[in-house]
Parts: sequence; structure tokens; C-alpha cells
Amino acid sequence: MSRIILASTSPTRRRLLADAGLAFEAMAPGVDEEAVVELARREGSALEPADTADILARLKAEAVSSAHPDAIVIGCDQTLDLDGELLTKAPDMDALRRKLLRLRGRRHMLHAAVACAKGGETIWEQRDSAALTMREFTPEFLGHYLAGEGDDLLGSVGGYRLEGAGVQLFNSIEGSYFTILGLPLLPLLAWLRTQEYLEE
Amino acid sequence: MSRIILASTSPTRRRLLADAGLAFEAMAPGVDEEAVVELARREGSALEPADTADILARLKAEAVSSAHPDAIVIGCDQTLDLDGELLTKAPDMDALRRKLLRLRGRRHMLHAAVACAKGGETIWEQRDSAALTMREFTPEFLGHYLAGEGDDLLGSVGGYRLEGAGVQLFNSIEGSYFTILGLPLLPLLAWLRTQEYLEE
Repeated sequence: MSRIILASTSPTRRRLLADAGLAFEAMAPGVDEEAVVELARREGSALEPADTADILARLKAEAVSSAHPDAIVIGCDQTLDLDGELLTKAPDMDALRRKLLRLRGRRHMLHAAVACAKGGETIWEQRDSAALTMREFTPEFLGHYLAGEGDDLLGSVGGYRLEGAGVQLFNSIEGSYFTILGLPLLPLLAWLRTQEYLEE
Repeated sequence: MSRIILASTSPTRRRLLADAGLAFEAMAPGVDEEAVVELARREGSALEPADTADILARLKAEAVSSAHPDAIVIGCDQTLDLDGELLTKAPDMDALRRKLLRLRGRRHMLHAAVACAKGGETIWEQRDSAALTMREFTPEFLGHYLAGEGDDLLGSVGGYRLEGAGVQLFNSIEGSYFTILGLPLLPLLAWLRTQEYLEE
């Protein structure tokens, strides 16, 4: 039975898999995400935000898999899609404020992709999406929210923590909680069962 | 501005509201839930599991509100609905095993109701439902699951913790995460904003 490696440094994804009862190691994927994202953001790019999540999940899984060919390597990615435009992580609080003002009063999608690789090649992949609609919060609310939550917000593609005051930004949230956290967990667990990595 | 009281002893609901940034006190509702549930479970009862959640949320809110008429009191309830039958909390691990074997391979609903009362009367209420489908897990898996999770499982109507290995019981989970945890959080926050208990 091969060991399982999660090719992700995300504490949320590590926690999700560990809480679900999977035994695995975690390591950094060492993939230049910027290059793919830049391609996706280029004017007239044929790469949709959902495709970008798929490609990055595969690249991460395959990069680690090449160095550990006998393991099952899980790669994951999540992208934020505002009417077809890919919005990346805000680098600082000013950028985050502008981003949340763009999302305000509108519906955006979160695409979460997962790929499993062995021997350097992807052998299974899946993607799931969630739709989130922000309310027309006031600039005052946003100021208090950003001051209260601080730098922790910069770690996620959305720039909001639904497990905290971030839930106050939203009118509606449709889709799987796991997808919103960045990992389509149920399909992954189902596939790991078919591979006998989890008990039926 | 009235104070807010959560009429619930559920640590999950207290945490959800506190994490969302609401200032409130919590107290036990002191309602005889059994009487209502027995009525709902009686052969030929006109009370559906969803109605039972509504009624209990209202009763809890109004009971605490009568003693604290100036406060806004939040009452909540959650019921499990298997094809119209209300399944209650399992009292012990044997009952829980039987319950999970009944749910195995089938779809059930979780109904979460919330009511807000003032002066002893309900002034707002809402209900939301989620649909969960269990996979055909083996008796061996169930044995390991129950042994691994233990008595902690007895605290919820479902007898599974989705934030733990309980996620391995499911093929699909449709609906709001907050509803599954027992509180329609987004509608409640929206209503509290209209009442100026939360910043717009």
C-alpha cells in the first residue's frame, strides 16, 4: 500500500483531511503558480478560472509525484471567479479592501479542484464549485471588519473567513462547505475508498 | 438597545454566533422538548419533522423571553427527517448503531429552525433544510467509526460529526453548512441587521 502525500501547505486542507481520518504526509508542492495565473489573467485568455484551478491542482500533484513516484499525491487548488475574471489573493490590506469592494453586492464563484497523481502522472481529478453573494455592506462595516480580522485574511483567495466575522459579508452561500474551504472532500474520500486507502 | 440572549445550551450554536461576531448571553431554554417530540412521533401525527423544529425553536425563544421580556431571545431547534419520520437523538451507543444502520444508503433531511422573541412573543422566525445521503458503509466500518468517535456522537440529532470522521459516512451533502450545524445563520444575521443589532 503506497503512502499518501498531500501536496499543499494550506493548514485548512491539512486539517480537513486529518479530521476526516486520513493518514498522510504533507509537503509544499514547489510549483510556480504565478506563471499559470498570469496566463489565465492575460487579456483574451482562453483559460477560465475553473480551468486554472484544474491545471494547478494537477501541476502540484505531478510535481511532488515525480519526486515520490510510489506515493499517491493529492494536489489541490482554488480560484475565485468574478464573472469570468480570476481574482487572486490580495497581497496587502489595501488591495484586500479594494477587492472586497469589487465583490460587494455581487455573486462570485469559488472553484476547488483536486488531482491525484502516481508515477508523475495524474490518475484521477475532480472539481466542484460554490456560489457566494455578498451583501451591500457599508464602507464603515468593511473598515471595522478589516481592522478586526487583520492580516489573517490575506491567506485565502477570497479574503474572508466564513468561520469568523466574514460570514457577515454575505447574503447567500450556495455549495459545499468543503469546496468553499478549498477541497472537494467527499469525491476525494470516495475515490480513496475505491483505491482501498480508506475502509469501505 | 436590548441585550441578546441565545436560548440554547448547544456549544456548536454558541460558537457559531460568537465566531460571527455577535455579542450575546446564552442560557438554557428550560422547555420540555420530549412532550412535543412525542406528539410529533405519534402514529398519524399531523406534525411533520420540519414543523416540530419550528415549534420547538419558538417555544424555547418564548420561554426565555417571558422571563427576560426586554431582551431579544434567539431560540433554535433541529430535527432529523427520514422520509417523514422524526428520528431523535440516540440515548446510547447501541441505539446510535441501529440508527446509523437505518440511515445507511438513504437520504435524510436536517431541518434547522430559528425564532426570535421579545416580550414573550415570537417576532421573527425562519427555517432551512439540508439533504444528506449516506453511503452503503460496511458494518466493519461502522464499528471502527463508533469506537473511534465514542460518546461525543450522542450530542447531535444525527449522531455524526461532519467535522470529524463522520464525513466518511456520506456520499453527498447538499445544503448550508450552518443549517447542518443547527442554525440558519445567514437569515438570522440579516434579520439582526434590520433590527440594528449588527452594523449594516
